Amino acid sequence: MGWKQNSLTARLGIQYPIFQAPMAGGLTTPELISGVSNCGGLGNMGAGYMMPDDIRADIKQVRELTDQPFGINLFVPDRDVSAKTEDIIAMGTVLERYSSELGMAEKPALPEKDYTSLYKKQLAVLMEERVPVCSFTFGIPDSTDISELKKQGTVIIGTATNVNEAVEWEEAGADMIVVQGFEAGGHRGTFHRGESGQIGSMALIPQAADAVSCPVAAAGGIMDARGIAAAMILGAEGVQLGTAFLTCRESGAHPLYKQALLNAREDQTAVTKAFSGKPARGIRNQFMEDMQGVPALPYPLQNDLTAPIRKQAAKMGRPEFMSLWAGQGVGLSEEVTVKELMIKLVKGTEALLEK
Amino acid sequence: MGWKQNSLTARLGIQYPIFQAPMAGGLTTPELISGVSNCGGLGNMGAGYMMPDDIRADIKQVRELTDQPFGINLFVPDRDVSAKTEDIIAMGTVLERYSSELGMAEKPALPEKDYTSLYKKQLAVLMEERVPVCSFTFGIPDSTDISELKKQGTVIIGTATNVNEAVEWEEAGADMIVVQGFEAGGHRGTFHRGESGQIGSMALIPQAADAVSCPVAAAGGIMDARGIAAAMILGAEGVQLGTAFLTCRESGAHPLYKQALLNAREDQTAVTKAFSGKPARGIRNQFMEDMQGVPALPYPLQNDLTAPIRKQAAKMGRPEFMSLWAGQGVGLSEEVTVKELMIKLVKGTEALLEK
Repeated sequence: MGWKQNSLTARLGIQYPIFQAPMAGGLTTPELISGVSNCGGLGNMGAGYMMPDDIRADIKQVRELTDQPFGINLFVPDRDVSAKTEDIIAMGTVLERYSSELGMAEKPALPEKDYTSLYKKQLAVLMEERVPVCSFTFGIPDSTDISELKKQGTVIIGTATNVNEAVEWEEAGADMIVVQGFEAGGHRGTFHRGESGQIGSMALIPQAADAVSCPVAAAGGIMDARGIAAAMILGAEGVQLGTAFLTCRESGAHPLYKQALLNAREDQTAVTKAFSGKPARGIRNQFMEDMQGVPALPYPLQNDLTAPIRKQAAKMGRPEFMSLWAGQGVGLSEEVTVKELMIKLVKGTEALLEK
Repeated sequence: MGWKQNSLTARLGIQYPIFQAPMAGGLTTPELISGVSNCGGLGNMGAGYMMPDDIRADIKQVRELTDQPFGINLFVPDRDVSAKTEDIIAMGTVLERYSSELGMAEKPALPEKDYTSLYKKQLAVLMEERVPVCSFTFGIPDSTDISELKKQGTVIIGTATNVNEAVEWEEAGADMIVVQGFEAGGHRGTFHRGESGQIGSMALIPQAADAVSCPVAAAGGIMDARGIAAAMILGAEGVQLGTAFLTCRESGAHPLYKQALLNAREDQTAVTKAFSGKPARGIRNQFMEDMQGVPALPYPLQNDLTAPIRKQAAKMGRPEFMSLWAGQGVGLSEEVTVKELMIKLVKGTEALLEK
């Protein structure tokens, strides 16, 4: 198969085509990222919500822990995000039951934030730091930004949830594309119409691989060597695992979140807009059930309104109000170290594909 | 791998672990079923809607065309199906715009039908005919019926859409279980809560295979040798393909339906209850779009109310009002004969797995 030495690993300068997914929200610690990269995979920082200085500080830490390539993921902001004042107030009122239940002094309210300028500043850090790999979710950056990054040698990874999005990414100059199947945990990367981005990995991988000429890495439902080998046979040259890395000792997931992952069955996740305003898959809990049928504000407004509640819920040990992102492979979660997991994945895939 | 000689093929007495899905509604002609079985796979009749005499007649034809094993699929009826008279009248009124657009003299109305008795009579035919293989969708038959069938040597195949359903089927005595991923075309076989049965194949196959000891066959998104090989690596001992067989010359699909399959992209299907009252995946068309947000009657009432409209639409060449069932792999559809397809699948899988 040549599953280890292929055009994806060659382009990235890594040993095994295994990415740890860039999960935003404090989950991808420098220890997790560097641990994966030190084991021959590609660790990725979920920097979408991070302040520029925090990104810089984490990059520094990662570089102290590894000399191997790693990646940073940013969220490309939507144009013209807005909501009616009365809708924002109404959502604030809906959310008050949680802030008061959690004993929070402040009522839910939107912070002053300029999202486009945050993204530009994040991007500036990646340029200054000359990060080896940069991936993007929720859209495609301006062509000038892509050229600039490529000029300094950064490898560009796009995120696509259907064939057309993959084709658009290739035309925009992506070096490789992560195709995110319906099974995946966390945010759907969809930037076309929402309903067009719910393709299961079994159907998405071969059709995307046929449609583009750059390498494709498969995400969504992959938890072990069987998933990696299957994705490679379907036409992927790499894989990206998120949920499997969340229960690693090195991940930044809250202990109760890790516990929820270890206990969840495959049929206990659902896709919701309730936490952030964009569809994302997590373990069904009270907050998700409560908010069914309540129209969320657009991303990132909904996200900013619920973030303090989720933070407080984590502090108080109340997983029923936390976002417990997880993919449909969650039933295969195990308590491990990054090194144990990486060895298991590599050896297992070797056994399946190198016969 | 031993992908050809395994416990599934041994139990069925077939050469290759490839099932043609039992698609109801006149799609699985005796030519299609026997064609698949003659090529070493397992042809299956979608008999869910068929009158007992028609099942008997088709079994006779299949037996004239092949001496190899084949299967019959029945729909296990839900208990206590009913709807308020005013809801039935309201849906009839909604559907009148289609019946009148199609120039139908009769307004949409429910036929007199005893669903449980239809199922019992269908089952009686399978017993009398001693069919080699019997599969069931939408539920698990009474244990007496299962024992009776097994006593006469019929192999029982269950349909599951999550791990718990698979476990329940094994406990009920299934010889093997088709696990139907979210990608699959046509009806979801879910018999637990609807939202629990939307697992992508990449996540469903390994978790189901781990949970039961009988063989598992994977359905959903599999269109070619890559899909077959991937499913086997994920833990399946067999595969079931539906959409891939619909564009075969021998299938009973309407020429316009075949054309729609050959033209559709992977992101153009959706799951709808609008046609039958149960969730089913098909190519999005005007009827599906129109009916979004209109609550359907329970299955099979919605099905019986829309069936004459769909039949007339087919007669008049109006695919926008037909049910165009298709899986998310639809972009890989090809115009072929059964023999061409089976040879391609077998040779391709050999090339991928027998190295």
